[in-house]
Amino acid sequence: MVRGSYAKGIAKRAEILEVALDVVAEMGCRNAPNVEIARRVGLTQAGLMHHFGSREELYMAVLRARDERDTEAHWINEPNFAGFLRVIEHNTTVPGLVQLYVEFSAEASIGKHPAHEFFVERYEWVRQSTKQAVRVAQDSGEFGPNVDADIVADLVVATADGLQQQWLLDRSIDMVARLQTLWNGIATLSKLPREN
Amino acid sequence: MVRGSYAKGIAKRAEILEVALDVVAEMGCRNAPNVEIARRVGLTQAGLMHHFGSREELYMAVLRARDERDTEAHWINEPNFAGFLRVIEHNTTVPGLVQLYVEFSAEASIGKHPAHEFFVERYEWVRQSTKQAVRVAQDSGEFGPNVDADIVADLVVATADGLQQQWLLDRSIDMVARLQTLWNGIATLSKLPREN
Repeated sequence: MVRGSYAKGIAKRAEILEVALDVVAEMGCRNAPNVEIARRVGLTQAGLMHHFGSREELYMAVLRARDERDTEAHWINEPNFAGFLRVIEHNTTVPGLVQLYVEFSAEASIGKHPAHEFFVERYEWVRQSTKQAVRVAQDSGEFGPNVDADIVADLVVATADGLQQQWLLDRSIDMVARLQTLWNGIATLSKLPREN
Repeated sequence: MVRGSYAKGIAKRAEILEVALDVVAEMGCRNAPNVEIARRVGLTQAGLMHHFGSREELYMAVLRARDERDTEAHWINEPNFAGFLRVIEHNTTVPGLVQLYVEFSAEASIGKHPAHEFFVERYEWVRQSTKQAVRVAQDSGEFGPNVDADIVADLVVATADGLQQQWLLDRSIDMVARLQTLWNGIATLSKLPREN
């Protein structure tokens, strides 16, 4: 009986996240998406919060679910810069999730916020993924030896975040093209002798 | 008499902005800074809103006042990349203003938001300033001829925004050093023959 309701809780949570990904992608995190999420899964707002505890926990779960989905769809089969760009390209189809990410990460940054650790760990993960893309590029000969993977990771991740912010305001910005230009520039520099 | 109260209104608005810059720098834009701003200037919250109309108008005015102050302190005498870096360095002393900027610009990006135009214009201004820094670098010989100022502006502004977001979560990130590395890389690339 306990096991049955536990399993049901897990299933309901998964259903809510599935719906929340769609609702936030459409509406962003303002304009009471909670109300719409609750409506679509047939719960009251209190019922929704029963499954997640708080608005912050719900949003963290949404961002985690999004990362899992993106990893499965774009990164697992292509753990390199092309795969990274496919995630960026996909982002252009889900502006509300991009907005949630930008706004929530800023909000999580000052004072004691439940999502602070989440974002610190997420940045570490994205940085490691980018460093992996650097190694792949070196192994394939796209990059030369003269490259500091830590610095490249910081710059690529920062550029992707910053372009995202500009893109939210002006959808004509081509994030993929700009990131490709950055990457190509790093490739050229990596083949120059040191101290150049 | 009308003129007198008009002048008083302008003076009060200036006083409020002065105080708001300090309060937001300390507290960010969450945790009801309005209450604290109103308290420090001896107004009720309704009195505060009388001067700005809405929370959005107040925040836009704060961000404008901040840009004016930064321009006067760091950019006017040094309208080049060194001046740009001085503004970034100053940002590390006012985390709440950085947070306000990141969060408010994300919020302004979806749907009809009163600050949408403000941020679009502000990005244009920052981009133009960066392009000016590129021209200065070319004139001084720091940059060679092989450089697209539009792309450089997009990338430098994006990197600065993205580093800012990372820095909000992890204050050990050296935004100035990373931006200098990016700039130096662009300088090297600009001196290579085209098609390299």
